[in-house]
Amino acid sequence: MTPPAIRVALLGHGVVGTAVARLLASQGPDLAARIGRPVELVGVAVRRLDRHPGIAPELLTTDSATLVTREDVDIVIEVIGGIEPASGLIRSAVKAGKSVVSANKVLLADEGAALHALAAESGVDLYYEASVAGAIPLLRPLRESLAGDQIFRVMGIVNGTTNYILSRMDATGASFAEALDEASDRGYAEADPSADVDGFDAAAKAAILAGLAFHTPVSTQDVHREGISEVSAADIRAAKEMGSTVKLLAICERVVGPEGESVAVRVHPAMIPRTHPLAGVGDAFNAVFVEAAAAGELMFYGRGAGGEPTASAILGDLVAVARNRLAGAAGPGASAYAALPIRPMALTPTRYHISLDVADRAGVLAAVANEFASHDVSISTVRQDGRGDEATLVIVTHTATDSALAATVDGLRSLDIVRNVTSVMRVEGF
Amino acid sequence: MTPPAIRVALLGHGVVGTAVARLLASQGPDLAARIGRPVELVGVAVRRLDRHPGIAPELLTTDSATLVTREDVDIVIEVIGGIEPASGLIRSAVKAGKSVVSANKVLLADEGAALHALAAESGVDLYYEASVAGAIPLLRPLRESLAGDQIFRVMGIVNGTTNYILSRMDATGASFAEALDEASDRGYAEADPSADVDGFDAAAKAAILAGLAFHTPVSTQDVHREGISEVSAADIRAAKEMGSTVKLLAICERVVGPEGESVAVRVHPAMIPRTHPLAGVGDAFNAVFVEAAAAGELMFYGRGAGGEPTASAILGDLVAVARNRLAGAAGPGASAYAALPIRPMALTPTRYHISLDVADRAGVLAAVANEFASHDVSISTVRQDGRGDEATLVIVTHTATDSALAATVDGLRSLDIVRNVTSVMRVEGF
Repeated sequence: MTPPAIRVALLGHGVVGTAVARLLASQGPDLAARIGRPVELVGVAVRRLDRHPGIAPELLTTDSATLVTREDVDIVIEVIGGIEPASGLIRSAVKAGKSVVSANKVLLADEGAALHALAAESGVDLYYEASVAGAIPLLRPLRESLAGDQIFRVMGIVNGTTNYILSRMDATGASFAEALDEASDRGYAEADPSADVDGFDAAAKAAILAGLAFHTPVSTQDVHREGISEVSAADIRAAKEMGSTVKLLAICERVVGPEGESVAVRVHPAMIPRTHPLAGVGDAFNAVFVEAAAAGELMFYGRGAGGEPTASAILGDLVAVARNRLAGAAGPGASAYAALPIRPMALTPTRYHISLDVADRAGVLAAVANEFASHDVSISTVRQDGRGDEATLVIVTHTATDSALAATVDGLRSLDIVRNVTSVMRVEGF
Repeated sequence: MTPPAIRVALLGHGVVGTAVARLLASQGPDLAARIGRPVELVGVAVRRLDRHPGIAPELLTTDSATLVTREDVDIVIEVIGGIEPASGLIRSAVKAGKSVVSANKVLLADEGAALHALAAESGVDLYYEASVAGAIPLLRPLRESLAGDQIFRVMGIVNGTTNYILSRMDATGASFAEALDEASDRGYAEADPSADVDGFDAAAKAAILAGLAFHTPVSTQDVHREGISEVSAADIRAAKEMGSTVKLLAICERVVGPEGESVAVRVHPAMIPRTHPLAGVGDAFNAVFVEAAAAGELMFYGRGAGGEPTASAILGDLVAVARNRLAGAAGPGASAYAALPIRPMALTPTRYHISLDVADRAGVLAAVANEFASHDVSISTVRQDGRGDEATLVIVTHTATDSALAATVDGLRSLDIVRNVTSVMRVEGF
């Protein structure tokens, strides 16, 4: 006698949903062996019934609200994306006692704390490995494998589109606009690329990572966000001259100050040395670098997007959630016991790289150095190249608050002897 | 009122055990928050009572057999290593209903199947993340995150000592003996380096990885093993000339042949291209590259050894095992449902790189090419550099069975026109 199946409802049947349905079918015997029960797809919610020839017609429905509360559904997989209707559907499903697997970074970053509380109240699971860095097992290691350790810092390349663009700029010397065009041609950039190039996508992922790493509720609004559209060919050249490359980084840190611990979360382009493990992450790949007290340095690397990789992460969650249901227990939920305050960007410690064209005459270096000193910013390295009546100054600072560094740059811009500020960028990973 | 504690017994108090005890103390509040109960160390089994000033004397015991069955113990952490007494103690603990966290690769690789069966029978957990690649979360991702995917291949640098030695040979041109001396001086190599340099350590880890990846019982005896003591400076130079570097790799593959699927597991030095993500893994770091049907390429990187990193992995397991106990359920055990046959090395498909010194005269290339053809080995690339009456031939083959490739090399050695076979090595990752 076959044991009763684990019954799954799928919300959404686009690129990811199609891959999930295909894997559910092709991996059937394997999933059954790993869960101890067969898995059965019992319904697929779509917007239009006539566009999904791959799904048996009797499974399709436009009535997603009814599907998520149906008695014959155990687990709901949500791959619609965005806030509504996904949020309302997940809430209904959870209240009806269904466990939920979601790939929805925007929703989890915005409403994660409320959704976790609801899931805990209903005694069901809410898993979302696919929401950050696609197929890379990342949330589970952070939440479970490192549960006995103290994470200091999570620094990642979590957006494939921007990594492709910056990799091309680095390889060919192209401008941002040229590299964006190339990314569009290759299918790596959306028609409206803002979510990627302006850092919104990375900021949502940063919020999720910071929350898990530091046991603190973090939402997208807590994340300082800068995109890559201002990164110039001159910035890339300046990075190369110091043996570095430019990456869009999502950085989540535990900062210890006199007033206690806090969490700083930010997304911005930064120069990192070519010897850093993240520097070699090219093309549209993702990677996340983790620093922990006992474990030391860890890195997780893989494909961050695409139907199949995302579906792989969803099925991994499905197996865990199904096993938990059969055991009559929920898995480890998100924990927010630390509840650390969020540190504003202005008070977050960073380091800057600054390239200046200055007049080449006596007293210029002193004036520039004074500007740094007046903001209490200490200089790590300085390089001066004279060429006739003009010189280039390349300065890398020590760590200071981001506001002090920004004020220093403003001060430099207003100095008569500074003819041009050719590149300003934060440096990380040194 | 404080809820009753989760009570832990620690077997062994060397480098790893000391780090575990220290983390249990320093991470106490965090562990309690993550588990929902405080964790209490109730006993530490050691060989000599007078050598452990860091542990309260009343916790120390030399009677490990009694400790593992004591009624006031919930979870046993085993960091003794080796087969006995670890095996007997773990069996007693499991039979007495204790869950076990172990870092013991040798034992798990040798007796894993029997120990898993015993744990399943008793309804307890046996976790061992720390046994492979130290702090790198690897077994949990393989076992859980990729549970809905099909793994094709796991290829890793899982021994830090040999990676340090090969990295030095690559960087400085040193011989194996010189680099081994340097590793000893730096504390990276044991007084008897055989377990590392002859590949025994990597072979045990390969057996564990293959078992998890392919849901098949695999033990150390199933692993083809070659160490690095025969790797010469000439091999390293030959690798450089083709844009490659030499690494000791543990390779676990699912091989599909006319007679069905099988699993091939091997440890040997190999040339990999410098563009491969594993090529940049230097010093004593570990990294494991995974190829899966849906997820694509993944890599996990970090510190593979050391007290603190290993303790981090053990505490991650401890949190999971403790949560499982409180939920009244065991976590996902090892699954061996696929039970694929083991493929012998002779029948495993590999590729060879071969450098030869040959007489530089008409007909030589034809004779060499004939030798390959006679074993049904197809040549991918060939480069001939003449210098007077002698020439160097560098040949990279296509994939063939390892026995056909080995027979080809034997054949080449016996040809009159071949003066010297300067380097023979498998190539991977192209």
